[in-house]
Order: sequence, then structure tokens, then C-alpha cells
Amino acid sequence: MPPPRSLPRGLTLILIPLALSLIIRPLLKAPSHLVLPALETNVGFAILAFVATAYLIPALGENFIKIGLKGRDLLKTYDDAIPECQGLICAAVYITLLTLFIPFPFSSFLTRERDYDVEGLAGGDFPHQQLATYLSALLSFMAATMLGLLDDLFDIRWRYKLPIPIIASIPLLLVYYAEQGLTTVVIPIPLRKLLGTVVDLGPLYYVYMSLLSTFCTNAINILAGVNGVEVGQALIIACSVAINDLLYLPWPYTLRLGSRELGGEWGAGLAFGSKELVERHLLSLYFMLPLIGVCSGLIFHNWYPARAFPGDTLCYFAGMTIAAAGILGHFSKTLLLFFIPQIFNFILSCPQLFGIVPCPRHRLPKLNKVSMLLNNSEADLSWEKPSVLRDIVLRTLSFLGLTRLTVDPKTNKIKSCTNLTILNVLLIWFGPTTEEALVVRVMLTQCAGSALAFFVRYGVAGFVYDGDRR
Amino acid sequence: MPPPRSLPRGLTLILIPLALSLIIRPLLKAPSHLVLPALETNVGFAILAFVATAYLIPALGENFIKIGLKGRDLLKTYDDAIPECQGLICAAVYITLLTLFIPFPFSSFLTRERDYDVEGLAGGDFPHQQLATYLSALLSFMAATMLGLLDDLFDIRWRYKLPIPIIASIPLLLVYYAEQGLTTVVIPIPLRKLLGTVVDLGPLYYVYMSLLSTFCTNAINILAGVNGVEVGQALIIACSVAINDLLYLPWPYTLRLGSRELGGEWGAGLAFGSKELVERHLLSLYFMLPLIGVCSGLIFHNWYPARAFPGDTLCYFAGMTIAAAGILGHFSKTLLLFFIPQIFNFILSCPQLFGIVPCPRHRLPKLNKVSMLLNNSEADLSWEKPSVLRDIVLRTLSFLGLTRLTVDPKTNKIKSCTNLTILNVLLIWFGPTTEEALVVRVMLTQCAGSALAFFVRYGVAGFVYDGDRR
Repeated sequence: MPPPRSLPRGLTLILIPLALSLIIRPLLKAPSHLVLPALETNVGFAILAFVATAYLIPALGENFIKIGLKGRDLLKTYDDAIPECQGLICAAVYITLLTLFIPFPFSSFLTRERDYDVEGLAGGDFPHQQLATYLSALLSFMAATMLGLLDDLFDIRWRYKLPIPIIASIPLLLVYYAEQGLTTVVIPIPLRKLLGTVVDLGPLYYVYMSLLSTFCTNAINILAGVNGVEVGQALIIACSVAINDLLYLPWPYTLRLGSRELGGEWGAGLAFGSKELVERHLLSLYFMLPLIGVCSGLIFHNWYPARAFPGDTLCYFAGMTIAAAGILGHFSKTLLLFFIPQIFNFILSCPQLFGIVPCPRHRLPKLNKVSMLLNNSEADLSWEKPSVLRDIVLRTLSFLGLTRLTVDPKTNKIKSCTNLTILNVLLIWFGPTTEEALVVRVMLTQCAGSALAFFVRYGVAGFVYDGDRR
Repeated sequence: MPPPRSLPRGLTLILIPLALSLIIRPLLKAPSHLVLPALETNVGFAILAFVATAYLIPALGENFIKIGLKGRDLLKTYDDAIPECQGLICAAVYITLLTLFIPFPFSSFLTRERDYDVEGLAGGDFPHQQLATYLSALLSFMAATMLGLLDDLFDIRWRYKLPIPIIASIPLLLVYYAEQGLTTVVIPIPLRKLLGTVVDLGPLYYVYMSLLSTFCTNAINILAGVNGVEVGQALIIACSVAINDLLYLPWPYTLRLGSRELGGEWGAGLAFGSKELVERHLLSLYFMLPLIGVCSGLIFHNWYPARAFPGDTLCYFAGMTIAAAGILGHFSKTLLLFFIPQIFNFILSCPQLFGIVPCPRHRLPKLNKVSMLLNNSEADLSWEKPSVLRDIVLRTLSFLGLTRLTVDPKTNKIKSCTNLTILNVLLIWFGPTTEEALVVRVMLTQCAGSALAFFVRYGVAGFVYDGDRR
């Protein structure tokens, strides 16, 4: 195994004072001069999150190996033990910093001089009543982390594993209930004649929220297997959510996009003067920026060739964080758009997950130890009974370029197919490659997915929704 | 090792329906007919907590042993691996139930028909504003559990361990700060000429609160070593706190104690009509009753001969819970009184902890494998340099009956002394005994301590405090 990576000392020496100054500045300066003082602090915490995670992972790795939280890298030629479950360090740093962040948006010392409203907006600060909501989210993050750690420790079986994100989301849901949160959804224009403009889903809304956290968690868990891919996708999704949030904040300048005008002096971007929208997206940002920090810290060590593995803890924790941002920010539909590659991967996997096509234990690409390139891994069908359904599914997927079949030229029977994952599709389309290049391909796919998501959300959605976005 | 214990099936069949009916009754009946509907639910949850813990510990024990969370019993003749860290199961059950409990006191469905006040008290129910406080306590419990588990897993060194309870109490303190909680203390009457009736401690109050959680945690951790003693003391302290809380609730009947009248129809016991006092002690009860439940479940398996060990997780978790009840209930001085045996044990241990008297690695009593009785363990002084301070300390303690010395009759030099713990004192005073009888002695001491505490609090405190108890 290559030696551990460490942050360049120069970078640390720049980042730490920068972070501290961002945290302290709102305390020193008359806060009324700042647009979003707590957000500035949050950026400081996000930088600290990056530095702390990047520092702690190599420092604590040995301890994880000692107690058996270790794995070996299946796509390498060496056999060294690599610390697993490093998502625990991310989660611990994240939750600690988010706890220390509590007084900034929620106590009065930042807001005492800023009781004024600008254009109907409370100059960008945050209502104290939302403290309970914030705390319930922290509880859910902690529950997800705890259950993730237990999963990594005890290797919980699949059927016990599935409800874990639902259990972790209970604090969020119950506080949402106790606080009498909205359970309505806005109906797309074409369906309004049928259902009305707004429909109250009632208890179904809670089912929807808990399923959202299950989805986010498992979506990240299932697209895995090559160095950096779990944390990389979490990072890109978190960045996409953060960019989306930034569009709704009150910036002191105007952005023109074609005929559309975003912002205006003290205007609130796409929030168009809605205080509620600003608050929701601020809350989401408070969760996303430190998540970006810890994920960046982990990917620094998890990038090819990996010195640390994220473990299930990261998937549970990051999935829960992203889901909570979507739930509390009320943009769950937009959030789902950022998961386009994961949804694609899931749908593609279904024939193997549901037993139509045989599913080997590991579906990750194979390392060719001569060329040192990754090749498609395959599912062997030669011993399977013939099945019309399977043949139709596989030949359709093959026609779409999503799998490559090996067919017996005499009998025309399918002997094997490449495994049905997005990683294998990328290898079919662009040829065998190194592990690092494959991860880059996945990351670019994820970025393309986010670009598509923004296009759908702000280009296409205009036809089916009006400005009334709740 | 003897076979695992299991709850009698008949008991389970009685307890589960009883618990469910207590939980469901306030939902069915017009809540206005009940005095404290959420408290009734809480009792139901406490019973469930007991059943769940008692069931899960033997069911999950093997998994703990498998991943190395195991220990062997030092005071037994057998050598079997016994699952450690079972406090984790207590904490998981406790936190899950307290999370599920959220809607009962904090949402409106129990209170919608009860907007009336009786004699100035809101018929015993709970203000929604306190939700943030409740959640912050849950966060602290979870942090304590997480850190306890990490301690059990990684065997954290002492100097890193000490601040753990302070870290775990941060959510509690920060929310207390953000909510602008009281930081004043009432001064005893004799000192009021000097300091005034009430003094605002300001930031010192936060230091005091975090030290309280450190104290509660370590007090339980240090009095350990014989089967059942950690969880037994936590159980008795929790019961004492709960009994103290019950004195402040509005009961529909009057209790006469000498010249003192407690309660009165819809009166609020010792709260004398203060809504705030009722609410504080209700919150404390909500925390204590399920704690009594999980501790009873654990002691069922941890009682001599132990089939399960609590681990540090229990000490952190139970200590934090008890401290939070004292902090949020504003009765930290009364709480400290319930720790009289622990304080005595700590003061007695000081000469060994601070190196005046040599401290062997284990100070627990020794098993005599012939008589099968526990005898005093001793610290060997024969190789130590002479020390006047040590001689004074040991001869004073020996004079008080708190240690037994072995003195060389020729030189009059102290050759050894019994270890300075309350367990050894009980063996000196009442003679060698079985492990089970020793635990009973400790439990009786703890009960006597609580009785003394109640006497001091409600008998003696009247001379130094008036009714103005904040």
C-alpha cells in the first residue's frame, strides 16, 4: 500500500486562520453590516470540517485496524489491511461542528442589532423557533451514524438493514409532527383540474419523507466498489444541493439570466421575497457546507489508491444528511433530480436484484493484472435454466448498449452478460481503463446528472409548475 | 458460566399489554379526565424499556462476544467470555423510546381539550417550547452513548477520557444558552447578607453544569468491580430522583406530614402552585422512569452471577441522563445529595488516586477460592520509601475504621493496608462475605444515602433556605 497522504502544511496554515476568522468576524463586526452572519460562520466551520477530517483519518486509522474495522482493496495487487468505517470520523467531526454551530443562528447575540427587515426579509437570519427542527435533524444524523457503526461492527443482515434509515429518520418526523409541519404538496398545472392546486397528503407525507431517507441512503450505498465513488457521489450531490440553495439567498447584487432577473439589491434570488424560502434554503446550506467539508476530507484519503474506506457509516450518515436537507428545505423533488445516476443505476440493477438475471456476490469490475486495467465483470448464465423473460430483458439492455452479451454462435443461447451496474456500462461505452479513470468517469456522469437536474428544474419545470412553490 | 436468565413468560404477558394500555389510554379517553396523560404514557414506555432490555441482552450477547466486546469475571472460578458493553443495548432502547415519546408531551393531540388551568397550574401538562430542551438532552444522551461505545471499542486512555462527559454535555449547554436559560442560584440564608438572595453565575453556571455531568459519569464509573454494582447504584439514584420528582406533581389528594401539607386537590405537592416547578420535575420524570426501566432490565442479567457486563457505555449514558435531569430540573444540589456514597468513595480513594498511597491496577476485593468468600484486597507498602504524610493519612483512616493496616511489630512500619474503596470498607466493617451479599451491602448503603439525602433536603435545608427555591 502506498504511504498515507497528509495535507500540505502550507494549506493547513492558510485554512485554519481563514476558518477561524470567518467564525469570529460576525462576533466582532457590528453584525448589521453583514448579509448572512451565521452563514459566514458556517463556511468557517465547513473549512474546519475539511481540515479536521483530513488530519484525523490518517491519525486514527491504525486504531480502526486494531479492532477489526478493516478491509482489503479488491481491485489492487497488494493485500494490506485498509481502515474501514472512516465515515465515522466524518460523522463525528460533522456532528461536533454542527453542535458547536447551534448558538450562531439560534441565539440572540448575532441578531440583537438586526431587528430590521429589508424588503420583507429578515436580512437573512434565522428564526429561533426552528431550533427544535435543527436539533431533530442532528438527532437523526446521530442515529444514522450510530446504526451505521453498528452495521459496520456487527455486519447486520439485509432484511434488518433496510429499515435502518427509517428508524434514523424518526426524530426528524416526530418533531416535524409535533411542530405541525406542512404536509401539503403543490400539484403540477396539468393535474390541477383533477386534484386542485395543493393537496394535503397527511400521514402519507410522513411515509414519503421516511422513504426519501431510505432512498438517499441506499442510493449511495449501492453505487460502490471502486475507490472514491461513494464519497465522491455524496460530495457532488451535496455541492449540487448547495448551489441550488444559493439561488434562493438574498444577495446584494442582481444576476440576469436571459429574461429572468435573480436577486436585486437585498432581493432574495429565486425566493422572490419569500422569507420562508430563504430560511429553508439557509437551513439546508447549514447542513450541506460542513458535509462538503467532511466529504472533501475523506475523499482526499479515499481517492485512488485508497488509504481509507468510508464504510456503511458514511452512506447512512451522508444519505440522512442530504435527505434531511431536502425534507426540511421542502425541495425533495429537486433533490431526487440530483440522484439521476443513482436512479438509473438502481433501475439497471433491478433484473439482478430481483433474480431475473443471476447476481454474483461482487459485481464490481475485474482487474486485469497484466494490463492493470479494469474490465467488465460478468454474470455466468451457462448453468441457468432457459427463461424467456431473462432473454427479453438482456437483449433489450444489450440493444440499448447497457450490457454486453456473450452468445453461443451455434445455439444462439446467452452464455454470459456483463453485470448490470453503471460502472460496467461506463466500461462498455468507453472501454477498459484504470480504476482512477473509471472513478473520474463516474464523477463526470454525476456532474452531468446535476446539470440535467438544474435544466429540468429551472427550464422544464416552468411548464408544469407556476411560481407557487411550497 | 451459569445459563442465561430469561424473563418468566407470564410476567412478559402481563407487562406488555399493561404498557400498551398505559400508552394508548390517554389517546382514547377524553384527555381532560386524566391528571397527567403524558406521564401515564411515560410509565408505559418505562415498562416496555424493561421488557425490551431484559429480552434483548441475552438475544444479542453472542454478537458482542463475536466482535470482541467481552470480558471475563475476575471474581469467579470459571473463565468464560461474558458480553461487555451491554449498556449499549440499554442506551439504544432508552433513546428509541424517548424519541417515540416526543409526540405525547409536545404535540397538541393530548392537550387540545385541556386548555384550562386548575389553581394556576396547567392541569399538569407540558409546554411545547420545551421541545428544544428535550431534544438537546436526547442529543447529549446519544453523544454520551456514542463516546461510551467508542471507549469500550478503542479503550481510550484516561487523559482523553476525562473530557468525554463534557463533550457530551455540549448540546445541552448550547441549547440552554440559545434558549437563554437561567444562570442564577439561590443563596443560603446565612450568606445572603454577603451575596444577596440570588446570584447570577453567568458563564460559571455552564462550567458548573458540565462539571456536574463529569461528576455523575465518573462517580458511577469508579464504584465498580463486583457484579451488579454499577447498574445497581444508577438504578437506586434514578429511583431517588424520581421519588423526589413525584413530590412536586399535582396529585388529586392531600398528604399530611406532621405540620406540613403536601398537595391538596389539584395542588402541586411541594411545588406549592408553581407551574414552572411542576414542569421541571415532569421533564425529569420523563427521563428517569425509562432509565429505571432499562437499568432494571440490565440488572436482571448483570446480577450475581453476571451473564452480562454494563461496560463504560452504561456509566456514560446513565451518568449523563441523571445529570441532565438535575440540570434541566434545576435541582442539582439535591441531586448531589443522592451521590453521598459515591462522594464518600471518591474522597476515600483520593490518597490512592493522587499517589500518596500506592495504587495497584485492580482494587476490587479478592476471592478466596477455598471459602468462596470475598476478602479485602491490599496495597503492598513494604517496598515503598517511608513517608510521614502517608503514615498520617493511613493511621487516621485506620483509626476511623476505613482501612486495616498490617504493621511490622518490630519496626512499627506499615507493611500493607486494605485498598481505599467503599467495597473494602464494607468488608472490614461486616467481615468477609459472598459477592452477592457484598452487592446487597452496597445497595443498602446507597439506599441509606438516599434516605439521608431526603432528610438533609427536606429536614435540614429548611434552616438555610426559605421557600424561594429556584
